[in-house]
Amino acid sequence: MNNIQITFVGGDMRQLSSAKALHTKGNTVQVYGFDGCLIPNGIYQPPTLKEALFGVQCVVLPLPYARDGKINAPMTKEDITLEYVVDNSGEAIILGGKFDGKAYKCAEAHNIKMIDYYGREELSILNAVPTAEGAVEIAMRELPTTVFGMECAVVGYGKVGRVLAATLNALGANVTVFARRAEARAWAKVDGCKAEDTEKLATSAHGFTCVFNTVPAVLIDESVINSLSRDALIVDLASSPGGVDVGAAEKRGIRCISALSLPGRVAPDSAGMIIAETIENILISEEIIK
Amino acid sequence: MNNIQITFVGGDMRQLSSAKALHTKGNTVQVYGFDGCLIPNGIYQPPTLKEALFGVQCVVLPLPYARDGKINAPMTKEDITLEYVVDNSGEAIILGGKFDGKAYKCAEAHNIKMIDYYGREELSILNAVPTAEGAVEIAMRELPTTVFGMECAVVGYGKVGRVLAATLNALGANVTVFARRAEARAWAKVDGCKAEDTEKLATSAHGFTCVFNTVPAVLIDESVINSLSRDALIVDLASSPGGVDVGAAEKRGIRCISALSLPGRVAPDSAGMIIAETIENILISEEIIK
Amino acid sequence: MNNIQITFVGGDMRQLSSAKALHTKGNTVQVYGFDGCLIPNGIYQPPTLKEALFGVQCVVLPLPYARDGKINAPMTKEDITLEYVVDNSGEAIILGGKFDGKAYKCAEAHNIKMIDYYGREELSILNAVPTAEGAVEIAMRELPTTVFGMECAVVGYGKVGRVLAATLNALGANVTVFARRAEARAWAKVDGCKAEDTEKLATSAHGFTCVFNTVPAVLIDESVINSLSRDALIVDLASSPGGVDVGAAEKRGIRCISALSLPGRVAPDSAGMIIAETIENILISEEIIK
Amino acid sequence: MNNIQITFVGGDMRQLSSAKALHTKGNTVQVYGFDGCLIPNGIYQPPTLKEALFGVQCVVLPLPYARDGKINAPMTKEDITLEYVVDNSGEAIILGGKFDGKAYKCAEAHNIKMIDYYGREELSILNAVPTAEGAVEIAMRELPTTVFGMECAVVGYGKVGRVLAATLNALGANVTVFARRAEARAWAKVDGCKAEDTEKLATSAHGFTCVFNTVPAVLIDESVINSLSRDALIVDLASSPGGVDVGAAEKRGIRCISALSLPGRVAPDSAGMIIAETIENILISEEIIK
Repeated sequence: MNNIQITFVGGDMRQLSSAKALHTKGNTVQVYGFDGCLIPNGIYQPPTLKEALFGVQCVVLPLPYARDGKINAPMTKEDITLEYVVDNSGEAIILGGKFDGKAYKCAEAHNIKMIDYYGREELSILNAVPTAEGAVEIAMRELPTTVFGMECAVVGYGKVGRVLAATLNALGANVTVFARRAEARAWAKVDGCKAEDTEKLATSAHGFTCVFNTVPAVLIDESVINSLSRDALIVDLASSPGGVDVGAAEKRGIRCISALSLPGRVAPDSAGMIIAETIENILISEEIIK
Repeated sequence: MNNIQITFVGGDMRQLSSAKALHTKGNTVQVYGFDGCLIPNGIYQPPTLKEALFGVQCVVLPLPYARDGKINAPMTKEDITLEYVVDNSGEAIILGGKFDGKAYKCAEAHNIKMIDYYGREELSILNAVPTAEGAVEIAMRELPTTVFGMECAVVGYGKVGRVLAATLNALGANVTVFARRAEARAWAKVDGCKAEDTEKLATSAHGFTCVFNTVPAVLIDESVINSLSRDALIVDLASSPGGVDVGAAEKRGIRCISALSLPGRVAPDSAGMIIAETIENILISEEIIK
Repeated sequence: MNNIQITFVGGDMRQLSSAKALHTKGNTVQVYGFDGCLIPNGIYQPPTLKEALFGVQCVVLPLPYARDGKINAPMTKEDITLEYVVDNSGEAIILGGKFDGKAYKCAEAHNIKMIDYYGREELSILNAVPTAEGAVEIAMRELPTTVFGMECAVVGYGKVGRVLAATLNALGANVTVFARRAEARAWAKVDGCKAEDTEKLATSAHGFTCVFNTVPAVLIDESVINSLSRDALIVDLASSPGGVDVGAAEKRGIRCISALSLPGRVAPDSAGMIIAETIENILISEEIIK
Repeated sequence: MNNIQITFVGGDMRQLSSAKALHTKGNTVQVYGFDGCLIPNGIYQPPTLKEALFGVQCVVLPLPYARDGKINAPMTKEDITLEYVVDNSGEAIILGGKFDGKAYKCAEAHNIKMIDYYGREELSILNAVPTAEGAVEIAMRELPTTVFGMECAVVGYGKVGRVLAATLNALGANVTVFARRAEARAWAKVDGCKAEDTEKLATSAHGFTCVFNTVPAVLIDESVINSLSRDALIVDLASSPGGVDVGAAEKRGIRCISALSLPGRVAPDSAGMIIAETIENILISEEIIK
C-alpha cells in the first residue's frame, strides 16, 4: 500500500485508468482536465488547476505531455501550460511522457525534478503486450484464415518482436523470426520459433500469410514484397516512417496496415495500468513511496 | 496423394477454399455455382451443372446444403435443386451439411449414398479453433483491456469451451471454467484453468471482465448478470436461442454479444480447409480414397 | 470448508498426504496403520482400530484396498481385515480403491455403503499429470538429448496420451500423436501436435527419438521396432502386459522402459492430494459434505 | 550446406555429437583423441594427430580446452599439447572453450587465429535449455510432488532464469521470479510469472516448495533459508561458489543441490549440437563458411 498525493493533469482515458490504479494502491489521487468525463470512484476533481496541484507530492502529465505547445489535454477546452503547472507544483516531482529539452529547462529553472516515464524500460516491455495483441487482432480481422496454423514472419526480435512471436506461437501459428544478430536468433529458437537471418527474407517470403514488421528500417523492401503471395498481409508496427516500401506493396496489390500507438488505441485501460506501474517504480526509486 | 474426381455445387468462399485444399491433395476438382468468382488455379468450372456432375465420384454440397427449398448457392442466380443433382450424379457419393429427412429420402429413391459432414465429430472439433479465435477477437475489439491478465469465465467445457479456455490461457488470461461435471472440472484444472461448479457462477461472477458462454441453456441468468460488473462483456457462443437472459443484461446495461457461425464468418478459408479434411476422412472410410 | 470425521486405514505415503489435504479443508482426520511414521500436524492416530473407526462418517481404505486377503497396510505389522473394518464402522461410508466382488458383498451384508474412488473419472484424469511427468522424467534421464526439440511419438490419445502430449509440447518437443480414431487425431491437431493414423507407425517410426506408448495392445510390434533407430527409447505406460513386443526390442537392442503406477511412485504427495480431491467429490455427491 | 574441413581434437561425447552435426551439414569432419570410442558414420579418425591437423580449415578444441596443462582429452591416454596443435594446424582457425592468456599468446606467436566459442552469447542462450531441463529433472526426481501446481521461486532472470521460468510455467508450476531490476520483473510478468524484488525473498520464502537460484551471489542466505519450509528443495544453478548459504541449509535440514555444467551432463548430444551451431556461426562471420 502506497500513501502519497498524486495529481494527473491532462491526457485521455489512459490517465484515468492510471489514476484509478494508483488510487487502488492506497494513494490519494486527483485529476484535472477531464471536463464532463466519468471519473472513477474515489478520485477527486478539484475545481481549479491551482487547487489540484496544491500540496501534492507528484504531478503526472500525459503521454506525450504536450501538443501544440500546450499540455496535451484533449478532454478539456482549457489551455494548460507547462509553466503554470511547474509554477504551482511546489516541491512535487513531475512525471510525464516524451519530455523535450524545453520541458527540462523549464523544470530546472524552477528547481523541480522531472522524470520521463516513457523512457523507462519496463514501460516499453509491458507495452509490448497490448501492442502484440493489437497486431494479432488486426491479423484476425483482416485475414480469412485462423492464426492457428498460419505461417507468420516476425521481422525483428526486440521487445515487440519477442512478445508478438510468443503470442502468435501460443495461438498455434508457425512463426519464423528474422533477425540479424545470432543472439536474437538463438533466443527465438529457444522461445520455440524458427529463426533466420534477415538477409533471407526475400528468398523465403513467398511462404508467409502474414508478415509483422517491428524494425524501423525498410527491410520489407521491393524484393521482399515481390516474393510475397498476393494474399499476404503486412502489419507494420515500426514507428514512422515504418519499415515497408508502401509503394511497392501498392503496386503489387498487397495490403499493408501500419499500426502505431496500439496500446492506447486497443487497450487504453491496460495502457493506463502500465503507466501506473511505471510511475510507482519511479516513485519507489526516488524514495517518494517507501 | 488422393486421386479422385470431385465436384462442389453451391456454397460460399468456404467451398472454394475446400475445393482448393482437395485439389492440392491431388484430386481433380470442379466447382459449379460460383458465377463471376475468382476460381483458384487448377480448379475447373464446367459450363453446365450436368457436365459438372458427369462421371465424378463425389459431389459436395454446401453447409447448410439448402436454403428455401433450393441448394444453398448464393454466388449464382441459378436455382439448383437437390433432385437435379441427385438425378445427374450417377453413382457418386453426395456429401453436404445439415441434410434433413427430405434429402435422405431423395437420395434413397435414387439409390445414392449421402453423408452429412456437419455431423462428423472431427469437423466440430476442428471448428472449435476458428470459433475460439472469433470469440477472442470479439473480446479484444470490445474491451479496453488486454486479454493478457484478464479475468475470464468460460461456461461449459465441451469442444468450444475447451479450445476457447486453452486459447485464452495461452494469451495470458486468468481463466475460470464453470462446469457441472466433476470430470470436466478435472480436465479444466489439468489444462491449467481454475474450475468451479456451474452453481457458483452467480456468487463469483463479480470478478470477471468477460464471460464466454458455450452452453445452450440459460445459465447466464438474472442472478449471474446482476452480480457482474457493469463494465463486463458477455460473449454468447451457444446456438440459438443462446444461454443468456438478454433482457436482464439490457436492463443492467451489460453488453452481450451473440456470436454464431463464427468459423465461416471470421475464417472462411480455414473453415473450408476443415471441411476438406472432413471430406477426405469420409472418403477414406468409405474406401473411395484408398 | 468441510467439517466431517474421516479415518484412513492402511496404505502408504499417499494416504497420509490425502489425510493432510482433507484436514486442511477443515475435516477431523484420523489415521490407523502408520506405526512409527511421521504423522502430519493435526492428524490424530488413535491407539486401536476400534477407536479409530468409532463415530466417523467416512472410512478411507488404500489403493488397492487389499493385498493377500488383508487390508493393504504396509506401514504396520498388524493384520487388518475388511470384515473388522466394516463391522466397526457404524454407519460410515467406506471408500477405497479397486474394490472387488468380495468387498461389495461384505459391505452389503453389513448394510454399509462402499464406493470405489479408483473408478472415478476425475481420479484418472488428474492422475494423468503425475503419469505424464514421470514419463518425461524417464526420457530426460535416459536420453542424451533435451526434450526440447526432440522428435517424440505418443501412441494413443486417451487421458494419459493427451496430457503427456501436452506436456511434451509445452517443453518444446515435436510431438506426433498416433491414434486410430479421426476425432482423436482432430483433437491432437487442435492441441498443437501432428497426428497420424496408428497404421502409419511402422512407416514413420525411424524418425523418433522417443516413443511413448499408452495403449494396452501390442501396437509397438516387431515391424515398428525394426524401423526405429537403435538409439531410440520406448517408454511403455500401458498397463500390464503393456503394448510393446519386448522380445523384438531386446533383439534389436532398443531400450524399453515399462513404467507403471507412476503417480504413487514419482509424486506420492500429489497422488494423495488427487485422492483427497476425489474423496471430497464423492462425499459431496453423497451429501455427506454439504 | 557447408563444405569445409574440420578436425576435432580431444573432449568428450559432446565433441562427437558436435562433429556429427557439422558432418551432417556437409563438411568433412575428422576427430582425434577418441581411442576406442564409437565414431559416428562418415567421420574420419586419422592415425596421427599430425595427419588429423593437416590441411584443415578449422580445428576445434574442447570445452574447457585444457586440463592440467594439456588439451582436455579424457578419451585418450595420449598427452596432447596446445603447442603441438598450433604448430601443426597450418593456417587453420582454432576454436575452443575457455581459452586463457597463455592460449592466446601461443596462437599469436604462431600467427594463428583463435576464437573462444564459450564466450559466444548464442552458446549460453542455447545452453540455457539443457540447463533448465536438468534443473527440472532434479526437482521431479527429488520432490514428492508434481511440478504441475508446484510453488516455485526462480531467483535471477538472466538467461538461465528466463528459460527455467518458462519451462516451469509450461509445466503448470506457479512461478515467482525474484529480480532486482524493474525491467527484469517486467519481462517476468510479460512472460506469465509473478515477479518480486529480490529483497522480498526472505518474507515470502515460506510458500515455496522449490527455490531455483541462478545468481552467483549469496541471495539464499540464512534469513531466506530460515523462512523456508523444511520440506523445500533448493536447486543452485549459480557457478561456484554458488548462491546458497549451505551451512544454514544444513543446519535447518533443508536439501540443497548444487547443479553445475548441466548441459554436458544431462544432454551431451544436445550440448554438442549447440557447440556445432555456435561453431558454424563463428565460421560464417569469419567468412570461412560462405
